[in-house]
Amino acid sequence: MFSPDGSLFQVAYAKEAVRRGATSIGIVAENSVVLMAHKNVIEPLAVPNTIQKIFRVDSYIGVTYSGIVSDGLHVISIMRNKTQTHRMVYSETESVETTAREIAEEMQMATQYGGIRPYGISLLIGGIDKSPKLFELDPGATYLGYKADAIGSGKKIAEEMLIKGYKDNMSTEDAISLGISILKKINEGKLAESNMDISTIKKDVGYEQFTSEKISKYL
Amino acid sequence: MFSPDGSLFQVAYAKEAVRRGATSIGIVAENSVVLMAHKNVIEPLAVPNTIQKIFRVDSYIGVTYSGIVSDGLHVISIMRNKTQTHRMVYSETESVETTAREIAEEMQMATQYGGIRPYGISLLIGGIDKSPKLFELDPGATYLGYKADAIGSGKKIAEEMLIKGYKDNMSTEDAISLGISILKKINEGKLAESNMDISTIKKDVGYEQFTSEKISKYL
Amino acid sequence: MFSPDGSLFQVAYAKEAVRRGATSIGIVAENSVVLMAHKNVIEPLAVPNTIQKIFRVDSYIGVTYSGIVSDGLHVISIMRNKTQTHRMVYSETESVETTAREIAEEMQMATQYGGIRPYGISLLIGGIDKSPKLFELDPGATYLGYKADAIGSGKKIAEEMLIKGYKDNMSTEDAISLGISILKKINEGKLAESNMDISTIKKDVGYEQFTSEKISKYL
Amino acid sequence: MFSPDGSLFQVAYAKEAVRRGATSIGIVAENSVVLMAHKNVIEPLAVPNTIQKIFRVDSYIGVTYSGIVSDGLHVISIMRNKTQTHRMVYSETESVETTAREIAEEMQMATQYGGIRPYGISLLIGGIDKSPKLFELDPGATYLGYKADAIGSGKKIAEEMLIKGYKDNMSTEDAISLGISILKKINEGKLAESNMDISTIKKDVGYEQFTSEKISKYL
Amino acid sequence: MFSPDGSLFQVAYAKEAVRRGATSIGIVAENSVVLMAHKNVIEPLAVPNTIQKIFRVDSYIGVTYSGIVSDGLHVISIMRNKTQTHRMVYSETESVETTAREIAEEMQMATQYGGIRPYGISLLIGGIDKSPKLFELDPGATYLGYKADAIGSGKKIAEEMLIKGYKDNMSTEDAISLGISILKKINEGKLAESNMDISTIKKDVGYEQFTSEKISKYL
Amino acid sequence: MFSPDGSLFQVAYAKEAVRRGATSIGIVAENSVVLMAHKNVIEPLAVPNTIQKIFRVDSYIGVTYSGIVSDGLHVISIMRNKTQTHRMVYSETESVETTAREIAEEMQMATQYGGIRPYGISLLIGGIDKSPKLFELDPGATYLGYKADAIGSGKKIAEEMLIKGYKDNMSTEDAISLGISILKKINEGKLAESNMDISTIKKDVGYEQFTSEKISKYL
Amino acid sequence: MFSPDGSLFQVAYAKEAVRRGATSIGIVAENSVVLMAHKNVIEPLAVPNTIQKIFRVDSYIGVTYSGIVSDGLHVISIMRNKTQTHRMVYSETESVETTAREIAEEMQMATQYGGIRPYGISLLIGGIDKSPKLFELDPGATYLGYKADAIGSGKKIAEEMLIKGYKDNMSTEDAISLGISILKKINEGKLAESNMDISTIKKDVGYEQFTSEKISKYL
Repeated sequence: MFSPDGSLFQVAYAKEAVRRGATSIGIVAENSVVLMAHKNVIEPLAVPNTIQKIFRVDSYIGVTYSGIVSDGLHVISIMRNKTQTHRMVYSETESVETTAREIAEEMQMATQYGGIRPYGISLLIGGIDKSPKLFELDPGATYLGYKADAIGSGKKIAEEMLIKGYKDNMSTEDAISLGISILKKINEGKLAESNMDISTIKKDVGYEQFTSEKISKYL
Repeated sequence: MFSPDGSLFQVAYAKEAVRRGATSIGIVAENSVVLMAHKNVIEPLAVPNTIQKIFRVDSYIGVTYSGIVSDGLHVISIMRNKTQTHRMVYSETESVETTAREIAEEMQMATQYGGIRPYGISLLIGGIDKSPKLFELDPGATYLGYKADAIGSGKKIAEEMLIKGYKDNMSTEDAISLGISILKKINEGKLAESNMDISTIKKDVGYEQFTSEKISKYL
Repeated sequence: MFSPDGSLFQVAYAKEAVRRGATSIGIVAENSVVLMAHKNVIEPLAVPNTIQKIFRVDSYIGVTYSGIVSDGLHVISIMRNKTQTHRMVYSETESVETTAREIAEEMQMATQYGGIRPYGISLLIGGIDKSPKLFELDPGATYLGYKADAIGSGKKIAEEMLIKGYKDNMSTEDAISLGISILKKINEGKLAESNMDISTIKKDVGYEQFTSEKISKYL
Repeated sequence: MFSPDGSLFQVAYAKEAVRRGATSIGIVAENSVVLMAHKNVIEPLAVPNTIQKIFRVDSYIGVTYSGIVSDGLHVISIMRNKTQTHRMVYSETESVETTAREIAEEMQMATQYGGIRPYGISLLIGGIDKSPKLFELDPGATYLGYKADAIGSGKKIAEEMLIKGYKDNMSTEDAISLGISILKKINEGKLAESNMDISTIKKDVGYEQFTSEKISKYL
Repeated sequence: MFSPDGSLFQVAYAKEAVRRGATSIGIVAENSVVLMAHKNVIEPLAVPNTIQKIFRVDSYIGVTYSGIVSDGLHVISIMRNKTQTHRMVYSETESVETTAREIAEEMQMATQYGGIRPYGISLLIGGIDKSPKLFELDPGATYLGYKADAIGSGKKIAEEMLIKGYKDNMSTEDAISLGISILKKINEGKLAESNMDISTIKKDVGYEQFTSEKISKYL
Repeated sequence: MFSPDGSLFQVAYAKEAVRRGATSIGIVAENSVVLMAHKNVIEPLAVPNTIQKIFRVDSYIGVTYSGIVSDGLHVISIMRNKTQTHRMVYSETESVETTAREIAEEMQMATQYGGIRPYGISLLIGGIDKSPKLFELDPGATYLGYKADAIGSGKKIAEEMLIKGYKDNMSTEDAISLGISILKKINEGKLAESNMDISTIKKDVGYEQFTSEKISKYL
Repeated sequence: MFSPDGSLFQVAYAKEAVRRGATSIGIVAENSVVLMAHKNVIEPLAVPNTIQKIFRVDSYIGVTYSGIVSDGLHVISIMRNKTQTHRMVYSETESVETTAREIAEEMQMATQYGGIRPYGISLLIGGIDKSPKLFELDPGATYLGYKADAIGSGKKIAEEMLIKGYKDNMSTEDAISLGISILKKINEGKLAESNMDISTIKKDVGYEQFTSEKISKYL
């Protein structure tokens, strides 16, 4: 399972699967986290809003992924169970980091045991507990917090633009604008309300999935 | 299990099995979903109506598949159990998308675990909950909603013709006519009531499997 | 498990095992199904009637197979359990198609899971529920209804002759005569009451296995 | 597990193991079955009667095998359990064919599942239910009834001599004489009461294992 | 699993994974253990304090690791369970060595059994029972006590500097200063309070994780 | 698992392991069985009597083995359980042959199932039930009775000498003398009371393990 | 698992792992057993007394090992459980040989079953029951008693010196001196109280682990 240089081949290959996925972006703004995702729908008769790239996990936490669609949906289903179970057992919501760590444990096993392949996805988990939080998980089950981050095919371009454009305590509106400018650049102007998802997780307000109408106002 | 470029070989090969299957078409019409399937019966003494390509899952939902016959029947058997269980547990019918997602979870496991191969089928799931819905599932367990879609050997030709001929809120009758013109083109005029299935899922009326007599009126 | 072109090697090889088996024929006649099977007994001291090629499953359903003998006997043993269980649980007999589909599910698993090879047999299942029915199952677990059909080494010749000689609503006697003329052709005149089985499943009368005496009258 | 031509390599190789075993013969006589087996004891200090080649299964049924010794003993142990269980559950003795079929099911699994090799033995099962019966089982788990049959290294010679010498309804004495003449031919005159087993299963009398004294009278 | 020279390849490769991890240092001081770890954060928008490299296991014991992140988190989660269980069962805290040995047993299994790869991490476990203790565990599950030790990519440089700079019964302040001078050397002056962790485990005081403010005072 | 010629490679290789073991001899004498074994102790500081090559199984039965030491001890441990269990369940001692057959069944499984290798030992089981008995078991789980037999590296020489020297109903003393002359020949005069075991199982007297003193009287 | 010459490759390779371990020595003296072990600590900051090479199993029995550290600790943990269980179940202490044999059974399984590698250790088990006993166990699970014995990298030199220097009924002091002279020779004068362990198991006194002070008196 280990290669002679100490790397795990299957994990490295799974990261390639992520590099082929559509781009997702997460930005921590003042009192909010913004998640934005491109949906790579090229078939004219597909119904874009059936491709969900950003998911509500609980009222205070959402997630987007890049990579193998069915792996993504499977992990998100696990996340929802974990946060719900925590609510029921402890009568409180889990911290965003705890949720990220629990999913990392789940994904770690797929890198260590035989008879199962690693998950072919990266995740951006955004949420609010004491403050807005954004975590990235990769196929190797590593997680790390970010102020702003991107996953998927446009990761490199997106990160360069985020580094230039990100400001601490930027407003939610500015964060959305920054994200849209990045997705526009990556997709060469083909961005539309139909092929993207935007969600915000705001303090007191919680998780909000934008309607197409709301998205179109930002384009 | 992953190849160096991040793809899953067995899933890619399973898609070839789908490309060799007879063509199925799904069209969302006004207040209905139309499912149509060609049955590739070339043996003169075969009894075409024993080849079922479209199946009633529940009163509000049907499904057609392309690919390995026994895989298709197995998955459809699972679908029926899922929707029935939901009915009994929650005293309500599942949304079409929930059913599609549950089958996707089932098919996802066959792509991640050792000791089992992926399913060699694509599915078109059509149904009505708040509105008419059509979903495609492929061997990689990806699902996506469509206004109109095709799977199997004629997928490419069918999709081109659907793009040209599909209109939003087209009548059920027009959808059936469009589907038949496509299947006729793909099968070079050899289409007959004996080698095709048509089913409609209509609002208030529910699932209806057409008799040969009814099909022949459209040819 | 899938080859690059989407086929399943082990299933393809299992079909070769069937092609090496002795020929069986099934014909739907007026109010009956006729099953006929050649028994490839070349050893002079073998007792032909201990080679059973056609089996009573229940009073209304019989089955014949071609291919690996022990696989055939194992599947037939499963069939008997399924129909008996159905009788006990539902106080009614299963439809012929339901029985065929249940066996197909059993055989499907042997094509999808590791640690087991596909069954090296094809089956002809004949029975009467609302009307006479004949189904073929192959090693890939596909089943299909036929008016008349053949499996095993003589399949090609048999099917050509069935296409020429089969008539809708032909009498049971005519169906038997047609079947015998085919088996005679395949076996170059070496057919005898000792190396063949004939069974009929007739409406009201049910399953009947012919004695050698009865068979000899048709030769 | 299947080779491209539809054969099962491991089963074919297991048949080679049988071809290297000492010869056993079974003959159906009038109201009896005769089992005879050569014991290939070449070591001068071995105690031939500790090599048992013919076994009592129950009062009405015996068995001999050729091939891997420990496989033979294991299957015979299973046979005894099956017939005893049948006696206890149904208060009657199993038919000889039923016993043969049950062992065939046991041996079939060893040809279909991974993690186990096929049995390297052929069996001759002789017994009396309504009439004397003789069945051969091979490593592929095929069983077939015979009037007279042989397994092991001398199978070919033995079968030729059986075809010439066998008569329907021959007396038990004649059957034993025929068998002995065959074993003498195969073993080039080295046959002795010490290196062979003879058992008869007679109507009303049941299973009888011959003593060396009794065997010597026939040599 | 063993190579001809008696080494375990997978364990050797796993040690390469550790050699690629960021450097951690442990120093036993007078009445304390100091753990220090570099966090290899090169992405400008990452939030360094979400990368935890030193963890509180219990009030008297902490741990840092180098190597595969998700393996590290998994093992630390096991450690916490072990020490908590010991507390509950025996109403006392485990000795530091006992904890190290229990984790070694866990990691040993991953080197001996099939279907699982060795852990790709080394650990430095520091704690106080009767006196301050520091243990290193490597992927081969070997553990050994040290006065001062380092793991990860800078291990060689760090060990040379520790040998020169370490004094028995050095003060906690001196130990921290020594550690920082090492991490500075390894990281060529790029060390900052944002990319390192420091924890001390002191007699009576117990485990203390330094805030960025506290760390910056030492730089 | 089978090779094309019907042999089992792993069993053949296991027999090589036996051929490398020290020689053991068994002789059936008048009213007794003699077991004798050479202990290949070449290290001067080893304590020969800690190498046990002959074991008491029960008062009426003993066993010696050649081949892999730990396999031998494991099987002997199983033997003791089997005979004890029989005693407790049936209030009588097992026949020697039954014990041999039960161990053969145990060893047979190791030749047929995956995930386990055959035992690398041959056994000589000697005991008295109605008369003195001696059985050899080999790695293929074959067992056979002998008047006199040898296993291990000196098997060939020993068997030649046994054939020449063995007499039916020879006295126990003569049997011991014969065995010692053989072991002396095989070991070129290096035989001593310290590197051999002798046990006798005598009628009425039962199992007796000779002391070094007693052995030395025969040298 | 067997190689064609009847050896077990994995066991042979595991013995190489032992040959790379630090040397341990065991000597049976008058009314005592002496265990001595070199600790190969080359890192200046390592704490030698955290490397334990000799372990108390129970008051009357101790053990030292050479080879893979984590395998050694795992087996010693099993030994302690075995002797404690024996005490509780039988209200007496196990004989030293019984303990050795039980561990041999544990290690034998790791040589016969798939999915697990052999243990990469040899053990010297010393104890007193009726008299002082010393046993060696190797990776092949063979055990043998010795008057004096060595394992690990210095085995050959140590055994030569033991043969020359060992005397029956030598005093404990002389045995310790002999062992120290050997370890000094093997380690070229670098032996110190810090890099070696000495334990004695004496009649009436039981197990005693020497302190560094006590060891230094012998150097």
